[in-house]
Amino acid sequence: MTHSFDLVVRNGTAVTASASSRYDIGVSGGKVMALGEGLGSGRVEIDATAKLVLPGGVDSHCHIEQKTAAGIMCADDFLSGTVSAACGGTTTVMSFAAQHRGMSVTEVVADYHERARPKAVIDYAFHLIIADPTPEVMRSELPDLIRQGHRSLKVFMTYDRLRLDDYQILEVLALARREGALTMVHAENHDIIRWLKERLLERDHVAPKFHAVSHHALAERDAISRMITLAELLDAPILIVHVSTEGGVDTIRSARARGLRVYGETCPQYLFLTADDLDREGMLGAKYCCSPPPRAVAAQKAMWCALADGTFQVFSSDHAPFRFDATGKLVRGPSPPFPEIANGVPGLEVRMPLLFSEGVLGGRIDIHRFVDLTATRAAKIYGLFPQKGTIAVGSDADLAIWDPERLVTLSTEALHDNVGYTPYEGRRVKGWPVTVISRGRVVVHEGRLEAEPGSGRFITRCPPEWAETEGRSHDAAALARRFGAEKIFSNL
Amino acid sequence: MTHSFDLVVRNGTAVTASASSRYDIGVSGGKVMALGEGLGSGRVEIDATAKLVLPGGVDSHCHIEQKTAAGIMCADDFLSGTVSAACGGTTTVMSFAAQHRGMSVTEVVADYHERARPKAVIDYAFHLIIADPTPEVMRSELPDLIRQGHRSLKVFMTYDRLRLDDYQILEVLALARREGALTMVHAENHDIIRWLKERLLERDHVAPKFHAVSHHALAERDAISRMITLAELLDAPILIVHVSTEGGVDTIRSARARGLRVYGETCPQYLFLTADDLDREGMLGAKYCCSPPPRAVAAQKAMWCALADGTFQVFSSDHAPFRFDATGKLVRGPSPPFPEIANGVPGLEVRMPLLFSEGVLGGRIDIHRFVDLTATRAAKIYGLFPQKGTIAVGSDADLAIWDPERLVTLSTEALHDNVGYTPYEGRRVKGWPVTVISRGRVVVHEGRLEAEPGSGRFITRCPPEWAETEGRSHDAAALARRFGAEKIFSNL
Amino acid sequence: MTHSFDLVVRNGTAVTASASSRYDIGVSGGKVMALGEGLGSGRVEIDATAKLVLPGGVDSHCHIEQKTAAGIMCADDFLSGTVSAACGGTTTVMSFAAQHRGMSVTEVVADYHERARPKAVIDYAFHLIIADPTPEVMRSELPDLIRQGHRSLKVFMTYDRLRLDDYQILEVLALARREGALTMVHAENHDIIRWLKERLLERDHVAPKFHAVSHHALAERDAISRMITLAELLDAPILIVHVSTEGGVDTIRSARARGLRVYGETCPQYLFLTADDLDREGMLGAKYCCSPPPRAVAAQKAMWCALADGTFQVFSSDHAPFRFDATGKLVRGPSPPFPEIANGVPGLEVRMPLLFSEGVLGGRIDIHRFVDLTATRAAKIYGLFPQKGTIAVGSDADLAIWDPERLVTLSTEALHDNVGYTPYEGRRVKGWPVTVISRGRVVVHEGRLEAEPGSGRFITRCPPEWAETEGRSHDAAALARRFGAEKIFSNL
Amino acid sequence: MTHSFDLVVRNGTAVTASASSRYDIGVSGGKVMALGEGLGSGRVEIDATAKLVLPGGVDSHCHIEQKTAAGIMCADDFLSGTVSAACGGTTTVMSFAAQHRGMSVTEVVADYHERARPKAVIDYAFHLIIADPTPEVMRSELPDLIRQGHRSLKVFMTYDRLRLDDYQILEVLALARREGALTMVHAENHDIIRWLKERLLERDHVAPKFHAVSHHALAERDAISRMITLAELLDAPILIVHVSTEGGVDTIRSARARGLRVYGETCPQYLFLTADDLDREGMLGAKYCCSPPPRAVAAQKAMWCALADGTFQVFSSDHAPFRFDATGKLVRGPSPPFPEIANGVPGLEVRMPLLFSEGVLGGRIDIHRFVDLTATRAAKIYGLFPQKGTIAVGSDADLAIWDPERLVTLSTEALHDNVGYTPYEGRRVKGWPVTVISRGRVVVHEGRLEAEPGSGRFITRCPPEWAETEGRSHDAAALARRFGAEKIFSNL
Repeated sequence: MTHSFDLVVRNGTAVTASASSRYDIGVSGGKVMALGEGLGSGRVEIDATAKLVLPGGVDSHCHIEQKTAAGIMCADDFLSGTVSAACGGTTTVMSFAAQHRGMSVTEVVADYHERARPKAVIDYAFHLIIADPTPEVMRSELPDLIRQGHRSLKVFMTYDRLRLDDYQILEVLALARREGALTMVHAENHDIIRWLKERLLERDHVAPKFHAVSHHALAERDAISRMITLAELLDAPILIVHVSTEGGVDTIRSARARGLRVYGETCPQYLFLTADDLDREGMLGAKYCCSPPPRAVAAQKAMWCALADGTFQVFSSDHAPFRFDATGKLVRGPSPPFPEIANGVPGLEVRMPLLFSEGVLGGRIDIHRFVDLTATRAAKIYGLFPQKGTIAVGSDADLAIWDPERLVTLSTEALHDNVGYTPYEGRRVKGWPVTVISRGRVVVHEGRLEAEPGSGRFITRCPPEWAETEGRSHDAAALARRFGAEKIFSNL
Repeated sequence: MTHSFDLVVRNGTAVTASASSRYDIGVSGGKVMALGEGLGSGRVEIDATAKLVLPGGVDSHCHIEQKTAAGIMCADDFLSGTVSAACGGTTTVMSFAAQHRGMSVTEVVADYHERARPKAVIDYAFHLIIADPTPEVMRSELPDLIRQGHRSLKVFMTYDRLRLDDYQILEVLALARREGALTMVHAENHDIIRWLKERLLERDHVAPKFHAVSHHALAERDAISRMITLAELLDAPILIVHVSTEGGVDTIRSARARGLRVYGETCPQYLFLTADDLDREGMLGAKYCCSPPPRAVAAQKAMWCALADGTFQVFSSDHAPFRFDATGKLVRGPSPPFPEIANGVPGLEVRMPLLFSEGVLGGRIDIHRFVDLTATRAAKIYGLFPQKGTIAVGSDADLAIWDPERLVTLSTEALHDNVGYTPYEGRRVKGWPVTVISRGRVVVHEGRLEAEPGSGRFITRCPPEWAETEGRSHDAAALARRFGAEKIFSNL
Repeated sequence: MTHSFDLVVRNGTAVTASASSRYDIGVSGGKVMALGEGLGSGRVEIDATAKLVLPGGVDSHCHIEQKTAAGIMCADDFLSGTVSAACGGTTTVMSFAAQHRGMSVTEVVADYHERARPKAVIDYAFHLIIADPTPEVMRSELPDLIRQGHRSLKVFMTYDRLRLDDYQILEVLALARREGALTMVHAENHDIIRWLKERLLERDHVAPKFHAVSHHALAERDAISRMITLAELLDAPILIVHVSTEGGVDTIRSARARGLRVYGETCPQYLFLTADDLDREGMLGAKYCCSPPPRAVAAQKAMWCALADGTFQVFSSDHAPFRFDATGKLVRGPSPPFPEIANGVPGLEVRMPLLFSEGVLGGRIDIHRFVDLTATRAAKIYGLFPQKGTIAVGSDADLAIWDPERLVTLSTEALHDNVGYTPYEGRRVKGWPVTVISRGRVVVHEGRLEAEPGSGRFITRCPPEWAETEGRSHDAAALARRFGAEKIFSNL
Repeated sequence: MTHSFDLVVRNGTAVTASASSRYDIGVSGGKVMALGEGLGSGRVEIDATAKLVLPGGVDSHCHIEQKTAAGIMCADDFLSGTVSAACGGTTTVMSFAAQHRGMSVTEVVADYHERARPKAVIDYAFHLIIADPTPEVMRSELPDLIRQGHRSLKVFMTYDRLRLDDYQILEVLALARREGALTMVHAENHDIIRWLKERLLERDHVAPKFHAVSHHALAERDAISRMITLAELLDAPILIVHVSTEGGVDTIRSARARGLRVYGETCPQYLFLTADDLDREGMLGAKYCCSPPPRAVAAQKAMWCALADGTFQVFSSDHAPFRFDATGKLVRGPSPPFPEIANGVPGLEVRMPLLFSEGVLGGRIDIHRFVDLTATRAAKIYGLFPQKGTIAVGSDADLAIWDPERLVTLSTEALHDNVGYTPYEGRRVKGWPVTVISRGRVVVHEGRLEAEPGSGRFITRCPPEWAETEGRSHDAAALARRFGAEKIFSNL
C-alpha cells in the first residue's frame, strides 16, 4: 500500500503566530507537504487529539559546548544540550561560535561545526562572537562567513576579554549593515560594573548576592542607550539580548517609536527570579548568578509588559550551563568571591513550559504571541524563516505536540541537561510538549530520545527581512547629506 | 470523475500575517480544506503562478447604506459598497448599525439586516453606534445584541447628535467589558471644535479648508487622552478609530506601554492627503473634508511609524461615501460654509492597493505586517478570527489573488463605488488584486462582478481574544481594593 | 530726637528667593526704605539677632468668609483667618470672591470687600470664581474688574454648581489672555467622580474614606491634561491649583518643557497626609476630606520632586475651614455619606512652618526656594510683585522674623483659626515665625495679635509678568496662520 | 566733609534675580553697605537715572591665557580677557587651570595664579581640569585644593589628550561628592566623533563644515546620558557644559524630573549660530568651529526653551580665543583639514548683550531670569554666592549699569578682546552696559578701562548649596542597602 505521506499528525489543534485551528499535517521528506482535514495516510501516524501542535521552538540564545574566554567549558555538549532543548519543545538552537582574542573566526566556526555535527539531535546555527575585530577578520573572514549564511554577529560591551570599544562596535555595525547581518549585543557598562566590583571587594562584600549589586541596573540602561545611539547613527539593525531592567525596556521602546530597527529579548530568569535568589545560604546563591542578574519584582512586571506590547520580539533561554561544582560555578574554589563565580543559569528545557504556563495560561499573553516569541519571530529576525518557526506548507516539519493539561513539577531529575540543578526546582507548571518532531523525525517522546546523535543539521541562513533598506529615512545622516558627505553612511 | 475539492488555487505564493510560501489551496464547502503541494483536483481550478494569494481584507471601518444623524444617505448601498470593496481585495466589511437618538438599537439592527441581506456580495458585520444609551438600551437591548454576536460598540465624543458625555461613555465601557464587546471611539474634543468653528464663522472663514482649522489636532489629542483614561479606570479594551495626529499616536503608544488594551487605527487619508488638499479652488476642497481632517506631512510620517512599530493594529478605509453634489457633499447648497459640508471620503477599494504599493513596495512595512494590518488583526480584535482574516485550514476561503507587478492609475472611472470621485485621482500604484474569492466563490475577477447580490452573509462574532481578563492587574482599582470596594470595578 | 526710620529690624539674617545676608532693614511709611549695616535709629527697633528675616508669606489659595455653592459658610472670617495666617508667617492672603450661578460678579466682589474691610489684619486680594459666564459677565463685568486690579479668575471642572464646560473655559481663557488675567483651575474630571460616587453609594460604601476612592487620581490627570490642551490652543497662561498626583505632575512638567506658560501649585495636605488618614474610626476621616484628596506615599514623593525641580511655582494652603460639627463637616447630619461631607482642610497657619521644617531643615529644598514657593513667586504670578513677596527697597515692609530653632508641637489649642481641629495634631516642627510685620506694623508677636482689625488693606494688582506675549511662538495657531485665519487666536 | 559711603549709585532701577525697584546703592570697602532711597553722600557718585543696575555678570566658563593640550596658547591673557569681559558687563570670570597628562595639579594651579595675579582687572576663580587622575592627584592634591576653595573640577569625555574613561570619571565624581566639589563635564562620545572623522577624511571631506558633521548631535546625546547615569549612580552633582542639542536638553530635563542634581549650561553660539555658518567660502568657516558645533535652527529653539523653563541654570560664553591666523585657528597651516583647526569661538564681551537683546527684549525670558542665568545661579552653583552674583547688603559691589536703549552694532573693532574677529560681526543689539564696577571700583566706563591691571582678585569659594545631602533619597543605592553594602556609596 502506498502512503500519501511519511508522517501525518492528526486531529491536533495547530497554532501559529497568527492562527489556530484543527487540521491534519502531512509531512514528507522532512517538510510539511499538506495541511487539511482528513488527509491521506502516513507511514507514521500520530494522534494529536486534544493536543496543541505548535511550531518547534527556536531558542536563539544559548551556550552549548562553548569554552568561555576564561577557559571554562559548558556542561552541555551538543548532545545533552540539544536533547534537553528538544525535551522542552525546541527544535532549533542558535548557539555561539566564540572568537577569543587572537583567534581566526573562520577557524573558530570550523571548530564549532566539528563539535556540533556528530552530536546534535535537532537543527542548529551559530552566532559569531567577535572579540577581536582585526583587519583580517573585518575585511575577509566576516564577509565570507556572512555570505555563507552566518547572518548574526554578537558583541560585548563588558567583560575584560570580550568587550569592544564604541569605535570597534561602529565598525562591526557598519560591516553588518553592509553585508546583511544582524548585530546582537550584551549591553552593560563595563566601567560601572568594574568600579562597583572593586568597591565591594575592598569591603569584603564577596558573597554571591553582591554580584547583583555590582551589575547595577544603571549599567544596563546606559549601555542599551549607548548601543542604540551607535545603531541609530548608522541605521543598523540590532538586537539587545537578555534585557532585565525597566530602564532598558523604556529605552528600547522609545527607540522603536522613533522607527529604529531595534529588537529586544528577555529570558526566563528575568521573569521568574529576583536578586533575592542570590541571597541564599552559603554559596547557594551562585546557582543564580548570571549577567545581567535577576532584579526586583518591579522589573519582572516591566518584562511582562514588554513581552505583551511588542517591545520584545524574542524570548530565549540564554542557557549557560555550569554545574554547581569545581567544573563550573566553583571552578575557582569552593567559596570564591562573586567575581570568580562562573556566570549563567540553565534554561533550555524549561524556557517554553515556563512561559506557556505563566504567560499563556496566566493570561498575560495569548498563545499566538507565545508562538511568535518562542519561535516565529526569532526565525524571521535571524534569517531562518520560513524554513523554521512556523507550521506552513514548505516549511520544515518541526513540530511540538503539547498537552496543555499536563502538570509537571520542575526538578533536576526530570530535566535532560547536564547541569545538575535548576533554578526553578519545585516550581509547578501546566502544559508540556509530549512529542517533539524535527524535520518529520520524532526526536523525543515523553522525555525519551528517539533520534540519533548527529541527526540534527546546520542551517544556512538567508539575508533576513530587515536587510531591505530601500526607502528608509536615515535621519542621522541629514547634516552629512546637506554637506554632500552622505556616502560616509550610505556606502559603508 | 470525482474532484477532491470544489476549488483549488494552485501555485501561488500564499502570504499570511506570519508566513509566506508556495503551495496549493484546496477549498470545499466555502472553507479551506487543505494546503499543500500538488493537491488533488478541484471542480474549479485557478492558476496563481507568479501571483500572491493573500487573505481577503477585512475593512473594519466603513459606512455603507447608512443614514447620517443629519439625514444624509450614503451614496453606496450594500451592493455598490461590497462590490467596490471586493474589487480592492476586501472580503469582509464591518459597517455600522447607527442608532440615532430616540431609536431602539434592536430595531436599528433589524433594519440594517434588511438593507444588507439582499445586496451584499461579500460577508459583513455591524458595529453598533450608541447615541442614546437609555436604560432600556443598556439593560436589555445591548446585552442581548452582544450575545447575539454584535461584539463592538461605537461611541462619539463629538457631533451634536451623536456625542456621549464622559459619564455615558463610562457606562458603555462598563457594559462592554462585562458583556464582552469592544468599544470603538471617534475621539475629538467637541467643545474645542465648536469654539473654533464659531470663531471662524464669525470672521467669514467659511471655505472648506477651514474645516481643517476647526478640527484642530489638539482636539484629537485631548479626546484620545481622555478616552484612554476612562478605559484605564475600568480596564476596558478600546479601539481609537482614524487616528491622525502625532499627539494621538504618542498617547496611544504610551498607554500600550503601560499595559493597557488600547488599539489604534489609521486610514489612507492620513497617509496620503494633507490639509492643503482642502485648500483647492472653489468648493473642490469639500471632496477632502473628513473628520478628523488630513494633517501635515509630519503627521503622515508619524502614522507610518505607528503602522510599523505596532502602535496601530488596524488599517481601515473609514469609507464615507458622499457624492460631490446635492445628494452628498453639497446637500446644503452649492457653496455651503464648511460646517455644512457632508463629512467623509471614499476609500473602500483603494485602501489595500495604496498600502501595498506605498507601504510594502515602498519599504515601510513588510508584507506580513500588511496582511496583519488589513485583515488578520481586525479579525482577531473584532471576534471574526479564525473564520476570517487568514489562510488556514478550517477558515473561510476568503482569498485575494494579487498581481504584484500590475500598474494601475487610480481614477473614478476605474473604481466601482458610487461616489463619483476619488481623492487619489491620478495616483499610480503597483500591485492589484485580480481575483477575489469569498467562501470559495469568485466574487470579482479583473474588475468584473461574478457573484450574485445577496450572496454575502452576516457573520456572527465570538467573544474576542481580549475578553479573557483573568490575572490582569487592574492598577486603577488599587485604592478601591485597599478600602474593600473593588467590586465597583470587578463586578460591573 | 529725630529717628531715621519708623522701624528698624536689626541684625537678622535676611533671606530672599535669591540671597541671604545679615543687615538691618529700615522701614518708614510702611515700606522698606533702606537695607544696610548700621542703619540709623528707628522709632521702633526690633532685634533679630540669631533670627531669620523672611518676606511675609503670600498664601495665594485660601477660603475665608466664603459661602460655598452649597450654602455652607467658612468657619473663618477675615479676622480669624488673617490672624491665623499672620501667626504662621503669612502677610498677604488671596481668597476668593465666589460667584454662584445667577449672581453678578461685580456685586459679589463688592460684597467680599464689605466682609474683608473691617476685619482683615493683613493685606488681601480676591480671585474671582466664575461659575456663570453670562454675556454680561464676560463682556462687561470681567473686563472692568480685571482692569480694576482683580487679575485672576478661577474656574472649576467639577462640582455640579460650579463647573464650566470646555467651551465656557475657552471663553474664559480667551478673555483672560486678552485682558491680562491669569486663569486658575480646579482640575478634576467631573463625570469620573460622579460615576464612581454613584457606584460606591449603590453598594453602601458611604464612609469618609470612599471620598478618596471617588476622587480618583485619574480624574485629576485627565482634567489637568485637558485644561493644558485648552490653554495650549489659545496660548493662555494657567495655574493648576492643588496638584496631588504623579500623573498631574508629569503632565504639567511636560507642558512646561514645550514652552507653555503652565504653573502648578501643591499644598501641605499632599505632602503630609495620605488616603489612609480618611480611614479613621467613625466619622473622624471626615476631618481629612478635601478635593482632591490626599493620596499615597508615592504621590507625596512626586510632590516633593516637583517642588524641588521647579515644576511647581506655588505652595499654598487651600485653607478651607469647616468645623467638625453641624456648622461644617457634618452639616448634613452626624453621619452623612461621604458626598455630603463639607470638603476642605485648614492650613493657613501651618503652611509655612510645615514646609520650613520638613522641606528646608529636612534637606529637600533650600531656603531660597522656600521663600520663592511661599511668597515671591505667587506675588509675581498674580501681579503683587514687587509690592509683596520680597525684601527690597520700595517694597511693602511685610516681614516675618523666624526663630529657626524653635520647636513647636502642632495642636488645635496653639493655632489661631476657628476650625477647632488640625489634621496635623501632635506633629512636631522646628522653626517658627515669632514676629510678623505687615507694612511696618507688628501684626503678631509670639502668637499675640498686636494690630487692629481692619488694618489690612485690599491690594490692587498689576498686569503680571507673563502678560507680555510679544514674540512668543504660538504653535497651535500654525494651520490657522497658513490659511489666513490667525486672528481667531491673536485678536481674541 | 565726611561722606557716608565710598560710592553711591543713585536713582537706577536695580534688578536682581528676583526683584527690581528703584533705589540708591551705597558702597564702602568694596561691599554694598546700604540700599535705600535718598542715601547719604558718596565720595564718588554715579547717576543711574533711566538706567538698569544689574549684578555684574559671572561668566563661569571661559578660557583665558590657557595653553591647550595641543600646545596652542589662547589669544587672550588675563588682561585682555578680563577687560573684554568687563566691557560686556561681566565682573567675575571662572577660567580653567588645566592639568595636562603628567602634570601636578597643584603646580598647575600655582602657575595659573601667577598668570592671573598681575593682569586681571576683575575677580576670578579657576576650575580644575583633570586629565590625569593619578593616585597622588586623587588622594592628596585634589582634596587639598578643594578645601582651599577650588570647588569645581572639569572632566572631558572626548579629546585624545584629555578624556577620562568611565571608571576614572566615577573616581572623580566620588571624590568630588566626598570633598564638596562640583564636577563639570564636556560630554561628547569620543569614538563616535573619531569614527566619523576618519570616514570623512578617507573621502577627503576636509573643509571646516565637516567639523559639524563629525561632532554629531548623537555624540552629545549619548555622552550626556552616560554622564548622568554615572552621576545618578553616586548621587553626585554635575553640570553639563555647552549643551547644544535637543537630545541633550531632553536628557537633562528628564534627569532633573527624577530629582537628580544635574545642571545644564548653554552658550551664545548655540542660540545665534548654525552649522551653516561653518559652510563659508574657503577657510572662513574655521571661525565658527567649536565643540560642540552650532547645530540647526530647531536646536536653537530647544535651547531657548531650556533657558526659559529652568532646564538650564547657566548661560556662559565658553570664550575660547584663537585668532584666525597661524597663532590660532590656522596653527597647522593656512588650509588645514578640519580636525586640525583650533576649536572655539570668542564670546566674553557679547554674551550678556546678546542674551539681553534677543532674550529679554525679544520676549523669550524676563529680566530676572536673565540675571539668574548670567550671574546669580552660577555664583550659587559654584560657591561664590552671596559674595558674587547679586545686589545685596554685604555682597561685593559688582555692578553693571546698563543703558537699555543703547543700540550697538557688534564688530571686531568695537570689542576689547584680542581675537581679531567676532562670529557676530554686524549683528545689532539693543542694551549695553555703560559702566561696570567691581568691588566698588569703576573698571570700565563707556568702553574705557579705568582700573589697574592686577586689581582683580582670586576668589576662594565655599562649599556650594548642594553640598548638603542629608535626607536625600539615593535610589541607586537601594539594592546595596538591602544587602548591607550601602557604604560603598555613602562613605565614598
